[in-house]
Amino acid sequence: MKLGFVGLGNMGLPMAKSLLSAGHEVAVWNRTPARGEPLVKQGARVVASPAEAAKGAEVVFSMLADDSAAEAVALGPQGIITGLSKGAVHVSSSTISVALSQRLTDAHASADQGYVAAPVFGRPEAAESKQLWVVAAGTKADVERCRPLLEALGRGLTVLGEQASMANVVKLSGNFLIASMLESLAEAFAFTRKSGIEPKQFLELFQAVFARSPIFERYAQAIAEEKYSPAGFAMRLGLKDVGLVLEAARTAEVPMPLASLVRDQYLGGVAQGHGDLDWSALGALVAERAGLPKAR
Amino acid sequence: MKLGFVGLGNMGLPMAKSLLSAGHEVAVWNRTPARGEPLVKQGARVVASPAEAAKGAEVVFSMLADDSAAEAVALGPQGIITGLSKGAVHVSSSTISVALSQRLTDAHASADQGYVAAPVFGRPEAAESKQLWVVAAGTKADVERCRPLLEALGRGLTVLGEQASMANVVKLSGNFLIASMLESLAEAFAFTRKSGIEPKQFLELFQAVFARSPIFERYAQAIAEEKYSPAGFAMRLGLKDVGLVLEAARTAEVPMPLASLVRDQYLGGVAQGHGDLDWSALGALVAERAGLPKAR
Amino acid sequence: MKLGFVGLGNMGLPMAKSLLSAGHEVAVWNRTPARGEPLVKQGARVVASPAEAAKGAEVVFSMLADDSAAEAVALGPQGIITGLSKGAVHVSSSTISVALSQRLTDAHASADQGYVAAPVFGRPEAAESKQLWVVAAGTKADVERCRPLLEALGRGLTVLGEQASMANVVKLSGNFLIASMLESLAEAFAFTRKSGIEPKQFLELFQAVFARSPIFERYAQAIAEEKYSPAGFAMRLGLKDVGLVLEAARTAEVPMPLASLVRDQYLGGVAQGHGDLDWSALGALVAERAGLPKAR
Amino acid sequence: MKLGFVGLGNMGLPMAKSLLSAGHEVAVWNRTPARGEPLVKQGARVVASPAEAAKGAEVVFSMLADDSAAEAVALGPQGIITGLSKGAVHVSSSTISVALSQRLTDAHASADQGYVAAPVFGRPEAAESKQLWVVAAGTKADVERCRPLLEALGRGLTVLGEQASMANVVKLSGNFLIASMLESLAEAFAFTRKSGIEPKQFLELFQAVFARSPIFERYAQAIAEEKYSPAGFAMRLGLKDVGLVLEAARTAEVPMPLASLVRDQYLGGVAQGHGDLDWSALGALVAERAGLPKAR
Repeated sequence: MKLGFVGLGNMGLPMAKSLLSAGHEVAVWNRTPARGEPLVKQGARVVASPAEAAKGAEVVFSMLADDSAAEAVALGPQGIITGLSKGAVHVSSSTISVALSQRLTDAHASADQGYVAAPVFGRPEAAESKQLWVVAAGTKADVERCRPLLEALGRGLTVLGEQASMANVVKLSGNFLIASMLESLAEAFAFTRKSGIEPKQFLELFQAVFARSPIFERYAQAIAEEKYSPAGFAMRLGLKDVGLVLEAARTAEVPMPLASLVRDQYLGGVAQGHGDLDWSALGALVAERAGLPKAR
Repeated sequence: MKLGFVGLGNMGLPMAKSLLSAGHEVAVWNRTPARGEPLVKQGARVVASPAEAAKGAEVVFSMLADDSAAEAVALGPQGIITGLSKGAVHVSSSTISVALSQRLTDAHASADQGYVAAPVFGRPEAAESKQLWVVAAGTKADVERCRPLLEALGRGLTVLGEQASMANVVKLSGNFLIASMLESLAEAFAFTRKSGIEPKQFLELFQAVFARSPIFERYAQAIAEEKYSPAGFAMRLGLKDVGLVLEAARTAEVPMPLASLVRDQYLGGVAQGHGDLDWSALGALVAERAGLPKAR
Repeated sequence: MKLGFVGLGNMGLPMAKSLLSAGHEVAVWNRTPARGEPLVKQGARVVASPAEAAKGAEVVFSMLADDSAAEAVALGPQGIITGLSKGAVHVSSSTISVALSQRLTDAHASADQGYVAAPVFGRPEAAESKQLWVVAAGTKADVERCRPLLEALGRGLTVLGEQASMANVVKLSGNFLIASMLESLAEAFAFTRKSGIEPKQFLELFQAVFARSPIFERYAQAIAEEKYSPAGFAMRLGLKDVGLVLEAARTAEVPMPLASLVRDQYLGGVAQGHGDLDWSALGALVAERAGLPKAR
Repeated sequence: MKLGFVGLGNMGLPMAKSLLSAGHEVAVWNRTPARGEPLVKQGARVVASPAEAAKGAEVVFSMLADDSAAEAVALGPQGIITGLSKGAVHVSSSTISVALSQRLTDAHASADQGYVAAPVFGRPEAAESKQLWVVAAGTKADVERCRPLLEALGRGLTVLGEQASMANVVKLSGNFLIASMLESLAEAFAFTRKSGIEPKQFLELFQAVFARSPIFERYAQAIAEEKYSPAGFAMRLGLKDVGLVLEAARTAEVPMPLASLVRDQYLGGVAQGHGDLDWSALGALVAERAGLPKAR
């Protein structure tokens, strides 16, 4: 296929490589053009603007660092939208706001162009070794047209539906899950260290008990299915244990704001009469506060 | 060996079974004695008090629901301490407070008895199938003496050191990690659901990207080793992405207090000049606030 | 003076009245023109657009509900900027974002017009009885020119400096202080009620001890001057007392997330060695996390 | 009256003075006896134990720094309980836990002695100038007997009911309100400072608008009476304004965790359909989460 690729940063460069090595013809653009040179020997053509990268392409990818860069290359003067043919598709892999993704959807639709949001999970090394996981959304025709390209980028692809920005919601949720885990690890290591346990020891245990276990998967399923009863471990007990954490951390002088937050959630759940549900019923408490309908 | 087992709840019962099936002689006690009957055909002897379960035993286990029950069976009238021989060991597997574990250490030491804290990771099903992971701490002699028993309970054993209550710190930290993950999953599912994504779809993605990936393991290692530079993904970008989550969740009307907490941590990190460290440097921010010495 | 007034909502209407009753000539505009009729008998002239309200005026006020309305009447087609004479001043009293206030500053400057941000503290009743407190910022010349008008609106005026958006920062901070107090009152009433105390009784005590006392004023001064030593009440004791609150609220089953947050702040302060500073040294902890230079 | 006074710290010393200057006969005890000497010339008698201070007294006061000190002087060997006559009353003014206050109630009742909890609001200076506000609870007979003494300590007295520990709940709630206000002031000053506003300027405004205004009183009343409608300022607008604070603080790089918490509360309220209630309806949200019955 004839493709364009806009944005050759740590992620974009290896992604463009993957498309080249899958045999496609790729016109590349980057703010600093030198970034594209290593791709020339693989057959890439370095062009002078996003518009030019889009010109004549069936599909043009973009992979930028933030909203303002992504908006500029798409909608700015000499932007993708000005060069892309009617019927061709812009695939945006940047981690951008849901609001901007919606604006891009609308702008391309007005220009009779297609738009697919296709953010990726994985680091530059994963991009290099085609181990990314791609999450895509857009109209069925557009997504199907891009499917072989998206599959060439990584080890898997999840297609979400017709509203492109849904893919951004999911990507952002994934990064939120990681950031939360980082905070909880940060607090757990500070607590154990200050209580006199070597980080290396706690790490070994973490690897043995958590890292490869299906714990998180099982709980994610419980929350997805809103199945909180019968309790495997009751919210009442969760409240007790997180309370014990805070008590010991108080003694060790370790502030654990995430532990406090979780304790307050459990305390609210118990106060409202849900103490006998499984402790994963945090899912129900959070959903209720979001105004979601109750679990069936 | 001649053993005692006190507390035959959902966890205690299968644990006692494991010890019986490993060929030991076990005297069992439970508040409601009927719970012990299924064990009789495996050779267990049902006795009338914790003290009696301890009498003549080399090692007596206890597995109770909370501090007050654990304290009563250990130190109360007719408690383990009154029946246990000098030199024999009390292994406490209950999830109890660090403070109570220290009191039990002292009380048994005063009575010339040994004390090992050995809480377990795993649900009743894991206990049933000997898949628990045991974390033990106590004096070297006591722990070594109990080692074959602890190994008979599960699939692995981590020994932590001479101060028994360290094992309770680690067990509580583990439960804290799970509870935190539950809260973050709860918020992520509420956010994606309210944005129009089927929980089943998000679950599939979670399973593909997170559940079996080494993501958490790698980050736990970074925090354990306090290695936050060079950044794989900079704190500045973490701040941006969690900010985008909150922005979209604002629009969808989903309160995400954990996301807010994490955002504020990142914002503080960036404000204090750490924006270019890896986003796992939450580890450094939390440790600093706990008064821990800076990373080397 | 010849004035314009744009936006006759619950706040705008009585503010326009105050200007009329101070003897000024006022052209008024509102989305639904009927709102302006009561002002006609006081001499107001109802006009057809924000631009027309600005036409020929020395000063035009605007008072709208949010950013999008405030931006539309100022910069939209038929907006204030299109009607205002060179050298005349737009006074924006709306509670808007700092960013929009900066954009308005720039836009009016480009058009050789003046811009003063002058948000107000007080409810409609206070506007009616000229009891508002006005916070104004803008170039000295512009503010001085508007001073008699701003003084006619309320009981007091604070002038902040040449950067207009500073007034918006202060207005937003004031609303934040009120919202925080609401949350703390909400938690205190829930805690006392659930502990068995009549809200009426707690209210009486609050009125006697807090409402008319100089407590908050003294503490605000300590934080403003960064004077945390010698301690009147040490952070260590603050930690103890908030800990006791959480303990009792745990028993009463009342989640108090704000109390948890404050406890974690104090715990961090104590862990970092500041336990003997006054408990108002939260000021220092928060400032440090914001990357502000340490107190002298 | 014949009185005892146990604990002559920064608060206890001036309180004992007030009782002496009201003409009572007072036996005083302090861990370091030298603290009592200045009182001797006012007629105080320094004794060797809490028990001795209680001996022969109609009422004995205690004022200690924390639970462990308060428990030791009351219930320890040579404690108040061992010296106090049947029918005499122990007035505890210490800021102690609700749980300890209940234990003291029970212990004194078992010994046929009375117990009144009477913590005080005010600093040492207020104690010195008899400006404390006293909150008392206990059986009617006991409180009435002590009334003249309690009134001699300060400028006002609130009597709460027959359950002594209620007074402790109220005292702790008061300290919680102050600590919350400190956190919100800390965040507001950090935000304004980092935005370029002199702390002195913001302080002046705070003094003008908040410190002497009836704002908090009015809102406390709304929450006490659960009157959230019609809205003076709607929750929807509160959400908007706190959102604008966070947005500007994001730009200025100031983490404001309390602002985040309040924003999430408002967002939950709006998501659950309460956006048109007054923003003081945080009272309803918090109460609901505590399992309290809905407002009538």
